Amino acid sequence: MDRPVLTVAELAARLGGSCEGDGTPVITGVAGIRDARPGEVAFVANLRYAGDVSVTRAAAVIVAKAWDRPSPAALIRVDNPDAAFAHAASLFAPPPVPDPPGIHPSAVIAPDAAVGEGVRIGPFVVVEPGARIGARTVLRAHVYVGHEAVVGEDCRLYPNVSIRERCRIGARVILHNGCVVGSDGFGYTADEKGVRTKIPQLGIVVIGDDVELGANVTVDRARFGKTVIGQGVKVDNLVQIAHNVVIGDHAVIVAQVGIAGSSSIGARAVLAGQVGISGHLEVGEGAIIGAQAGVSKDVPAGAMVLGSPAMPMDRAKRIHAYTMRLPEMREQLLGLVRRVAELERRLPPPA
Amino acid sequence: MDRPVLTVAELAARLGGSCEGDGTPVITGVAGIRDARPGEVAFVANLRYAGDVSVTRAAAVIVAKAWDRPSPAALIRVDNPDAAFAHAASLFAPPPVPDPPGIHPSAVIAPDAAVGEGVRIGPFVVVEPGARIGARTVLRAHVYVGHEAVVGEDCRLYPNVSIRERCRIGARVILHNGCVVGSDGFGYTADEKGVRTKIPQLGIVVIGDDVELGANVTVDRARFGKTVIGQGVKVDNLVQIAHNVVIGDHAVIVAQVGIAGSSSIGARAVLAGQVGISGHLEVGEGAIIGAQAGVSKDVPAGAMVLGSPAMPMDRAKRIHAYTMRLPEMREQLLGLVRRVAELERRLPPPA
Amino acid sequence: MDRPVLTVAELAARLGGSCEGDGTPVITGVAGIRDARPGEVAFVANLRYAGDVSVTRAAAVIVAKAWDRPSPAALIRVDNPDAAFAHAASLFAPPPVPDPPGIHPSAVIAPDAAVGEGVRIGPFVVVEPGARIGARTVLRAHVYVGHEAVVGEDCRLYPNVSIRERCRIGARVILHNGCVVGSDGFGYTADEKGVRTKIPQLGIVVIGDDVELGANVTVDRARFGKTVIGQGVKVDNLVQIAHNVVIGDHAVIVAQVGIAGSSSIGARAVLAGQVGISGHLEVGEGAIIGAQAGVSKDVPAGAMVLGSPAMPMDRAKRIHAYTMRLPEMREQLLGLVRRVAELERRLPPPA
Repeated sequence: MDRPVLTVAELAARLGGSCEGDGTPVITGVAGIRDARPGEVAFVANLRYAGDVSVTRAAAVIVAKAWDRPSPAALIRVDNPDAAFAHAASLFAPPPVPDPPGIHPSAVIAPDAAVGEGVRIGPFVVVEPGARIGARTVLRAHVYVGHEAVVGEDCRLYPNVSIRERCRIGARVILHNGCVVGSDGFGYTADEKGVRTKIPQLGIVVIGDDVELGANVTVDRARFGKTVIGQGVKVDNLVQIAHNVVIGDHAVIVAQVGIAGSSSIGARAVLAGQVGISGHLEVGEGAIIGAQAGVSKDVPAGAMVLGSPAMPMDRAKRIHAYTMRLPEMREQLLGLVRRVAELERRLPPPA
Repeated sequence: MDRPVLTVAELAARLGGSCEGDGTPVITGVAGIRDARPGEVAFVANLRYAGDVSVTRAAAVIVAKAWDRPSPAALIRVDNPDAAFAHAASLFAPPPVPDPPGIHPSAVIAPDAAVGEGVRIGPFVVVEPGARIGARTVLRAHVYVGHEAVVGEDCRLYPNVSIRERCRIGARVILHNGCVVGSDGFGYTADEKGVRTKIPQLGIVVIGDDVELGANVTVDRARFGKTVIGQGVKVDNLVQIAHNVVIGDHAVIVAQVGIAGSSSIGARAVLAGQVGISGHLEVGEGAIIGAQAGVSKDVPAGAMVLGSPAMPMDRAKRIHAYTMRLPEMREQLLGLVRRVAELERRLPPPA
Repeated sequence: MDRPVLTVAELAARLGGSCEGDGTPVITGVAGIRDARPGEVAFVANLRYAGDVSVTRAAAVIVAKAWDRPSPAALIRVDNPDAAFAHAASLFAPPPVPDPPGIHPSAVIAPDAAVGEGVRIGPFVVVEPGARIGARTVLRAHVYVGHEAVVGEDCRLYPNVSIRERCRIGARVILHNGCVVGSDGFGYTADEKGVRTKIPQLGIVVIGDDVELGANVTVDRARFGKTVIGQGVKVDNLVQIAHNVVIGDHAVIVAQVGIAGSSSIGARAVLAGQVGISGHLEVGEGAIIGAQAGVSKDVPAGAMVLGSPAMPMDRAKRIHAYTMRLPEMREQLLGLVRRVAELERRLPPPA
């Protein structure tokens, strides 16, 4: 696939923007504002990087219409620099890795597995008996699909993904390398000596359409019934989702979050990085949980919480501000102790 | 394998419970109280879900003997609803995936590896020279067992588990997908410029009988000697266990915990989710570490600690309660400052 | 390879130390001070373990020159017990697993992939079209190297490592089991209903020479341009490195750290376990971030920070100390309230 040959002015036109400065250089690619070399185009959407524009070596910088700082590079003014840059990046991106349909001869596909049309199955893939793979789905090398598991159409499973038996994956789902779907939930009974006996984990995991799970994410199967990840949910790397958790549609779960057993996360909720959610809780629709928060009770719909234990974000910030002033409070307190003692000396109790 | 055909009344009898309401419907399966459809049986052990009983569509609900709420469903009264439901769930569970003995022809087993009787080895498994696999153990697809490593009898290793050289796994051990046993410990020397040189990690990992390690857990080999996971220890997903750590028998380690080098965890201790334990510490027998706690000094046997840095749980809760009242304290303090100034005005120091 | 037969006295000489006590026993191996059996040699560098020396069963203990505690074992006095023990451990260590050059017949190597001299490629390895593997590099079983990816010379990739397309790995890099390099960054646009659309992640990951990444580490490819891990960086298990992060040379990242998108970590910085770094931040050269800290703004070069949100370490410790004294402060405050009320009673405002 040939990449375009465009000048700065031509790129500006393609992006629906105006060009200011030298529009003649030929663009060879895109880069970050700090890394850009002559011939490359960069962008600035975040004011943090504004200072970098004045020293960039880029041929052109994509900026907002209101941009008013000097630049050695040509400026391409657009309504939405972020979106325009994404467009530019896609023009110059290397072509995606081809995934032509076909089954690698080394793959081990059970005779009774159902493999849809146009599927691509890479080397050393295992598809166990009774499993179904939807049309046009790509299973890269080393993927494992367990007994009677179902993977929908147009999915993409990267190397080392494993799906345990009977789990069900929707359409257009992307699972990154090392992601595990359907491992046993963490459930035991304990005797009086503290010796644990495993509780069979008899349920499954059900994943909706358009879900993306990051690298090395783990999703446990239900004790019974199902662990559910709703439509359009996006999960970052190294997240843990325990048995019987239910995640509402379009929720966003950032890296290294852990959600304990039987908790439910409302639709469109956002859990920032390293958040922990205790078991048997409800996080409401559209709630926002700040990074590293430890949620130990229900969170109402739309609430923003922070801290460990988590509390409403404005309260958490107020308490934090007061805490930062503790040395000053202690100083005031000691000053008062001295002044009150002096007053008491001057005004002794009646004899 | 045929699933049982049981009516509600027959199921109640099978569970040793009494039946109240319509005992005639045929049970088709089990489900959570909220998901249950006609023909399914649910249970309620946790009072949080009591309200759900009044609106359930289940044919029957398993409850404790003392249950006194109305229900549209039949009630099956038992001593222990949780255990009775587990029993019911196992009656209706799909049959477990069969693991008949045999070695898949694609597996690469070193000629001098010792493979016990009744072992099942899946596709693309690698067993390196000198390794030993105990009788009846199951190695699912893509498992890797390194040089001279030993896996005991009746173990179950899920896809993508890897065991590095010379590590030793006991009997009846379950290792979930992506679990890594015996990666190098994180040890370096640093020169005066901060350049690190790797310290060889010459030891191994020894795992006791009846241990279960979750998906994508990592256990590092010892610098020398051994990293030890005692008998019956249960470890949830995405836990990190560093070199030379020693975990006592029957300890429970919840998801995303990290234990730094050379620390020891006492028998039957419980570490809740996302806990961090610093290096070279001792956590005593039966200690309980609350979620997200950061343990930076030894924890006595039986202690309950919380917070980062961790402190005794009652103290942590007290300090937290006081912290929440800081705005009020500051208000009181400012009130006092005003009142003392007023007193000083009324009672000036003697001239 | 034969292991040495050395007496205690001979070992002392080999380590450049002096021998005190019985130098005649033959050493059979090394062990931790608590585990050591007769015939083994242990060491003590950390005073925490000093008490263990008096009861050790070791044949000899390596100690510092100034050591003055009694010991039933012979003492080997050296300048640096830690280094001397590492030397001793290497003398008695089992030989490393052999990695003779060669390509396992089961490996799937694209015809146009470039494989250097002396490379070892294990069973079920996949090397995709256009990839390059440097001389003497070892790819253990189940490794995946994506399209046009480059792995340098003398690297060691353990089982289940996967490198996505076009990523570039330097020389002498060690990647532990399950490590993922080049998974998609976590980037979406959201419409007004909260439905997310994936932003293509068009960049790559570039890893410098002499880097080591732990087991199940995840490193996302850049949105555009590159995610960079500098020379000599050491990363522990289960760390998450997001898209467009830049990590300076010789930085040290301990287990379970998460670094959000576009943040940069200065050279030789040290991030302790479970630290979280928010996106678009700069952590300066040589900065030290304490365990579990949550960094939400830039950290200057050389700074030491702690807490969530992170603050300078001495401030964090001071604030913590004050917080611990809150119950006492409240007590003092209530005492003052009583005393001021009493003073007001004795000195009523003028009528």
